[in-house]
Amino acid sequence: MKHRILLVIALSTLFASHMIAQTDAVSAARSFRQKNEAKLLREFSELLSMPNVATNVTDIRKNAEYIRQLLENKGMKARLLTIDDPEAPPAVFGEYLVPGATKTVVFYAHYDGQPTDPADWTVTEPWKPVLLTNAAEQGGKKIEFPMAGGSIEPNWRIYGRSASDDKAGVFTILTAFASLKAAGIEPSINLKFYFEGEEEAGSANLKAFLIKYKDLLKADAWIICDGPVHQSGRKLVSFGVRGVTSAELTVYGANRELHSGHYGNWSPNPGERLVKLLSSMKDANGRVLIGDWYKDVEPLGDLELKAIADAPKYDDELKAQLGLAKTENGGRQLLDVLNEPSLNINGMKTGNVGSLARNVIPSRAEVVLGLRLVKGNDVRRQLEKLRRHIEAQGFYVINREPTTDERLKHPLIAKFIPEDAGYNAQRTAMDLPISLAVIGAVSTARTQMPVTLPTMGGSLPLSIITETLGDPALITVPIANYDNNQHAADENIRIGNLWDGIEIYASLMTLTVSGRQ
Amino acid sequence: MKHRILLVIALSTLFASHMIAQTDAVSAARSFRQKNEAKLLREFSELLSMPNVATNVTDIRKNAEYIRQLLENKGMKARLLTIDDPEAPPAVFGEYLVPGATKTVVFYAHYDGQPTDPADWTVTEPWKPVLLTNAAEQGGKKIEFPMAGGSIEPNWRIYGRSASDDKAGVFTILTAFASLKAAGIEPSINLKFYFEGEEEAGSANLKAFLIKYKDLLKADAWIICDGPVHQSGRKLVSFGVRGVTSAELTVYGANRELHSGHYGNWSPNPGERLVKLLSSMKDANGRVLIGDWYKDVEPLGDLELKAIADAPKYDDELKAQLGLAKTENGGRQLLDVLNEPSLNINGMKTGNVGSLARNVIPSRAEVVLGLRLVKGNDVRRQLEKLRRHIEAQGFYVINREPTTDERLKHPLIAKFIPEDAGYNAQRTAMDLPISLAVIGAVSTARTQMPVTLPTMGGSLPLSIITETLGDPALITVPIANYDNNQHAADENIRIGNLWDGIEIYASLMTLTVSGRQ
Repeated sequence: MKHRILLVIALSTLFASHMIAQTDAVSAARSFRQKNEAKLLREFSELLSMPNVATNVTDIRKNAEYIRQLLENKGMKARLLTIDDPEAPPAVFGEYLVPGATKTVVFYAHYDGQPTDPADWTVTEPWKPVLLTNAAEQGGKKIEFPMAGGSIEPNWRIYGRSASDDKAGVFTILTAFASLKAAGIEPSINLKFYFEGEEEAGSANLKAFLIKYKDLLKADAWIICDGPVHQSGRKLVSFGVRGVTSAELTVYGANRELHSGHYGNWSPNPGERLVKLLSSMKDANGRVLIGDWYKDVEPLGDLELKAIADAPKYDDELKAQLGLAKTENGGRQLLDVLNEPSLNINGMKTGNVGSLARNVIPSRAEVVLGLRLVKGNDVRRQLEKLRRHIEAQGFYVINREPTTDERLKHPLIAKFIPEDAGYNAQRTAMDLPISLAVIGAVSTARTQMPVTLPTMGGSLPLSIITETLGDPALITVPIANYDNNQHAADENIRIGNLWDGIEIYASLMTLTVSGRQ
Repeated sequence: MKHRILLVIALSTLFASHMIAQTDAVSAARSFRQKNEAKLLREFSELLSMPNVATNVTDIRKNAEYIRQLLENKGMKARLLTIDDPEAPPAVFGEYLVPGATKTVVFYAHYDGQPTDPADWTVTEPWKPVLLTNAAEQGGKKIEFPMAGGSIEPNWRIYGRSASDDKAGVFTILTAFASLKAAGIEPSINLKFYFEGEEEAGSANLKAFLIKYKDLLKADAWIICDGPVHQSGRKLVSFGVRGVTSAELTVYGANRELHSGHYGNWSPNPGERLVKLLSSMKDANGRVLIGDWYKDVEPLGDLELKAIADAPKYDDELKAQLGLAKTENGGRQLLDVLNEPSLNINGMKTGNVGSLARNVIPSRAEVVLGLRLVKGNDVRRQLEKLRRHIEAQGFYVINREPTTDERLKHPLIAKFIPEDAGYNAQRTAMDLPISLAVIGAVSTARTQMPVTLPTMGGSLPLSIITETLGDPALITVPIANYDNNQHAADENIRIGNLWDGIEIYASLMTLTVSGRQ
């Protein structure tokens, strides 16, 4: 019921008088983009050509300074925010205050990207962006970046690390602002841009930044430009994110690699120990068997359940595209199971495979376990359930390499290193005035209601923001195509999604919130 | 009973008149080595500095030609044996016929080495041999190779790929021959040297070589210089080897890597599928659960059981050295369980660990399974048991990448690629006259009875020799220290073992077989 009311309000805003400003903004963004397509692609490609793994301090600072300069060039007051830790990537902050504006919105994106093994990339190297006529899997061919005036197809894609996650966000926000400036359209709200430099590294310092710059970052809402739109291609507005953390787990055999002939059947294989341990954590259906794993989950409300029920059903198409005969959890819908905590083998290794494989009993086996959390879960508590499970399987659990004495005393030893970073899930109410205004602004830009979801599957450090900044509304408006190979090799963005994004964000920068908030 | 007779015969040969030649040979080898220690180390180091992975055709040919030249220089008729396949590494063949000799022995070693990841090496790079004052784990320090006349300690070690496995074999055989030549001592038997170039690649072409050069390689016995001596340091004579093969197994998730947040709980994780599958193959005690795995094993005879019972008990020392609180198979003795077939995780990988770990659901998980076989097992039969087990776990088993249709039809798919090479186990009777003569020759060189074993844990393609060349006696006389990191990073050989080896092989080249054979 409540959801239907939400829908009616959102659609009615399409025809409200204050929407004229938004329609103008969308047109301005479109015409700006149409005049500058080739130039915009080159600008974006230049941004993508800068290596941006958060742990590389030199690389990441170059990115930050480059983006700060872009902001200045586009007429924004911009600076780098830093904290005491010299290893912490700076945040890029931009501010544009509008005389008479009563609302302030922080637009968030992150400029760092996931680490990657260049050897895994097939289309290009991670930081050598290239243009293709379509997705590589769809037979896309490499072409030159076009000169000014050349025609550009929306199905073209740019391949490169962070093409979608999340330099697309940085670029979209910047360009939406530039398009308003060019058309002489004043935003309806005070704009603050916050571009983080270590989201993919777990946002370990975000809290310290927010505490230090609490006053500067005060706002009614944060709008997050990160993640993919709905798989059907329909735009998405999401009111929550899963939390995330991870743990590294190492189990041991002998203190050195051994010849598998001279010692096989006698010296324990750490790979065998690891597969037994991991096998105990989930059933064949993907259900987590660790005690209390699902216990503290906060159930969804009626509004949230209705939003999920109303979202396009896309599982069958997805299965066909991904080559899946069967999914986990007894075939329950994707949008449904995303509201539960997960446990994932991010990576696992013992010895070598392929051309480096050898006839040895390896001395250690390692796994990185990724955890996603939902509302009600707590990072520390969830990791502790995992640790206790490992102990319950008979392992002596430590947080460093075992000593010789420990090796001789304990048949089963596990080194368990929980991630330092990581954060809880977050959800904003879907019926706040600002929530409705955001849905309206996206509808205006696309003349279609977006899919609305209580929770995206992915994670953003939003809980850190609410815990630190006194609960602003946090709403995610993603722009990337869903098949963007985010976090993987051959990451890409569809050009049409980039163009749509500019219009959507121009619309968001001219939104008006009805009533009280 | 039979074993005690064997022992008495062997020891009595120490005092037989024809042993005088052997004692002279041992003295000659020792004095030759003492005069040339520094030079010998440099020669050996030069041999180790040549990359020797069998799949690198250019590298491997350089090794072969270099060794052929060494043989010529030491006064042997030498040539490279080749077969039609231009990718097949050549064998180096040397021949020295002794007028009046009635017996012919082929001395076997291999000059190729295991593939290795240079990043795993801590002491040096694989093909940059260095000299240490002791094992690295024992605090050995890197020192320069000494100049002529400098003192050399037996506990020094040379580190480098194939330092023990098996350029030590090539070098030992060559040098033993050179020492006899230098002293003017004529061997008692016709000598043939056969140095293989693809043993670590599974000896895929050995059979073709043996068939082509059947007449050239006709002999009463083959003496194999490969593998480590007993862990106690006592020399070893082994009358059999385990067979070996392997299989690559790949299981699948979606057809591309997926974001673990947007798809976690829904898209199957191939790592999870692999751990469940592997976990079904062995129990927590290391016992293989695959049907009929142990069924066709040919039991050991009384003589073999006695030899094992008489061997030094060394398990406790080994466990202490390797940092093991518990071994597999309920703590049964190492020498006992080596007479059973094994199944080993040689290497396993999905996604990435360490600094390249990412929040993804990987698209595939791979494992290389190593199989060791004992007398009675058959390579094809053992692999088929494994394949059937995978099928019995519900997998659709194929020998190539799955098609899209197959992915959509079968929830569980396994690509199963058995190794092309691989061979069965082999055993020579311990009481043949030539067997006793070899035990005698080793005893003479060390003035101590060697440990005798029916089977070494490691593998050599000896069954291919017996199947092709009409059943010559095949006896392995290893020389390497057991803690040589064979097949692993930081491979090394103890200098004292190299020196002992030269004397043992000089003794073997002057052995006399009593009675009929």
